[in-house]
Amino acid sequence: MLSLEQEFHHIIDGQKPDNLYNPILYILEQPGKRIRPQLVNMSVNMFEGSTEQAKKVAMAFEMLHNFTLIHDDIMDEAPIRRGKDTVYKKWNSNIAILSGDALAIMALQQLLDLKCDEKVILAISNVFAQTSLEICEGQQYDLDFETQEKVSIDEYINMIRKKTAVMFAGCLKAGAILAQASQQDQQTLYDFGIHLGIAFQLADDVLDVYASAPVFGKAIGGDIRDNKKTYLYLKALEDANPAQKETLESLFSTQTSDFEKKYNIVRGIYDELNIKTKTEELEQHYLNLCMSDLEKINVSEDKKEPFNAIVQKMINREK
Amino acid sequence: MLSLEQEFHHIIDGQKPDNLYNPILYILEQPGKRIRPQLVNMSVNMFEGSTEQAKKVAMAFEMLHNFTLIHDDIMDEAPIRRGKDTVYKKWNSNIAILSGDALAIMALQQLLDLKCDEKVILAISNVFAQTSLEICEGQQYDLDFETQEKVSIDEYINMIRKKTAVMFAGCLKAGAILAQASQQDQQTLYDFGIHLGIAFQLADDVLDVYASAPVFGKAIGGDIRDNKKTYLYLKALEDANPAQKETLESLFSTQTSDFEKKYNIVRGIYDELNIKTKTEELEQHYLNLCMSDLEKINVSEDKKEPFNAIVQKMINREK
Repeated sequence: MLSLEQEFHHIIDGQKPDNLYNPILYILEQPGKRIRPQLVNMSVNMFEGSTEQAKKVAMAFEMLHNFTLIHDDIMDEAPIRRGKDTVYKKWNSNIAILSGDALAIMALQQLLDLKCDEKVILAISNVFAQTSLEICEGQQYDLDFETQEKVSIDEYINMIRKKTAVMFAGCLKAGAILAQASQQDQQTLYDFGIHLGIAFQLADDVLDVYASAPVFGKAIGGDIRDNKKTYLYLKALEDANPAQKETLESLFSTQTSDFEKKYNIVRGIYDELNIKTKTEELEQHYLNLCMSDLEKINVSEDKKEPFNAIVQKMINREK
Repeated sequence: MLSLEQEFHHIIDGQKPDNLYNPILYILEQPGKRIRPQLVNMSVNMFEGSTEQAKKVAMAFEMLHNFTLIHDDIMDEAPIRRGKDTVYKKWNSNIAILSGDALAIMALQQLLDLKCDEKVILAISNVFAQTSLEICEGQQYDLDFETQEKVSIDEYINMIRKKTAVMFAGCLKAGAILAQASQQDQQTLYDFGIHLGIAFQLADDVLDVYASAPVFGKAIGGDIRDNKKTYLYLKALEDANPAQKETLESLFSTQTSDFEKKYNIVRGIYDELNIKTKTEELEQHYLNLCMSDLEKINVSEDKKEPFNAIVQKMINREK
């Protein structure tokens, strides 16, 4: 069986015009973490569905994910991703907008091309569409929060649920639908995905401040540079003394030219308030919810093993 | 039955976040020409399909069309459309990227929500996806041509086929599928749409130079400003004497600050070479092809009347 990269290469290589398809091939061939295909496969295997069809669903969601990356990187003005130039940097914004659009459509085409019951294809396509729309909502909230004065921790968790977690949940649910799991198991796996996704994003927020850049593959401190109100920032505001609060609010309300200085002050306050540990505690809370979800699913213990493993891996995540 | 505007209002009004959905409502509620819904309806009526389901398909394609407008206007830096600010001008580019993305997904959701045979839904969704992808290809060729030194008239016609005509064709084919027309009639209507769409775009190119701005609803001369190699330009190059050719090529190879002057010189050369008439002759050629397509379709003459009418209307188009 061909690898995911080979499949991507197969369907995209040689398509014209080059300026539309080369950026798509460029981003899909980068060795990413491939968490979303992995989630699809885990879910299909749990209920013993078709591996061949699973691959198409996995490709669809990985393509959808990369579509969001291409467009998000324009909006966030992110120059580097996975240690390489982002699409809009390597080409330009117009090409990035259009390649992203094309990639989202090609993702859908993978699903429409599934060889299985039409009802199953439509159900998976519905999950795909709903997931995509909620991701757009999440990204818009994320942009809104940059200039919105007050953001509550609840609003933040809702934002990352949409921006990150629904994709994890959608992958798992789509796999469960393909493998004809019960409605209840589909929903429980969806919940597992939401909890895992929120934990994943919290870990990402920590890594943005505390990771080693070469391992992380992105520039460090991007969230601080962009005044992103992450859980770290919001929790710090909650726990800060008046002086710390004033410093944080002031630094996060303007564009600074001296990023190095801003980063060091903010990280200093986070350290004083023990924000890294507090964020990891909330992450652990969501991973515990994952474990409870898993208990509810009606399959043998050995089928659950990959799910336990991914939760464990999340705890030790470094990138 | 609710109007298209009422249906759009119904599904979008009140959705959150505002910055994602307000731009969508803004563009959908503008009184556009609604040619694409009209094409869907014409095709469904020709084969006596369901009016209620036709509306959903019509909405899907009108939404898809508006998604392309939102993104194209960013890329083309077009400030005005239908006499109003474009989305990226009224909000900003990031919001325009994201609202466009969301609108494309909502378009798909209209189709997935159809109440009819699953095979029909999948067939229409396939047309929708293929159409969307070809439109992206067409737009990329359009952008490429701005900086590409030599563009042939054949390349140009292929570009507008993808950028404009496949949408017309897709609307007609989707309607025919919904109404369960024969495969052959589906294909013939598709061809009719291609020929109509190419004629439509040629008329649009003429209007860009020769229309009255208040009627057209867009700024006049945008193609000249952006160095777009339209049929008018390519035909003028073909027919020009060496001096005219040099002037045209020189004006279309740089960004000029004096748009007024550039426009007047280019239009002057077009007039000397009778380019407006020559373009209208090619438009007429494609409209003649439409009439031959129509003859092949196996329905009574009265069912073809709206198709004859739209071809006639195209000949007298002013916006």
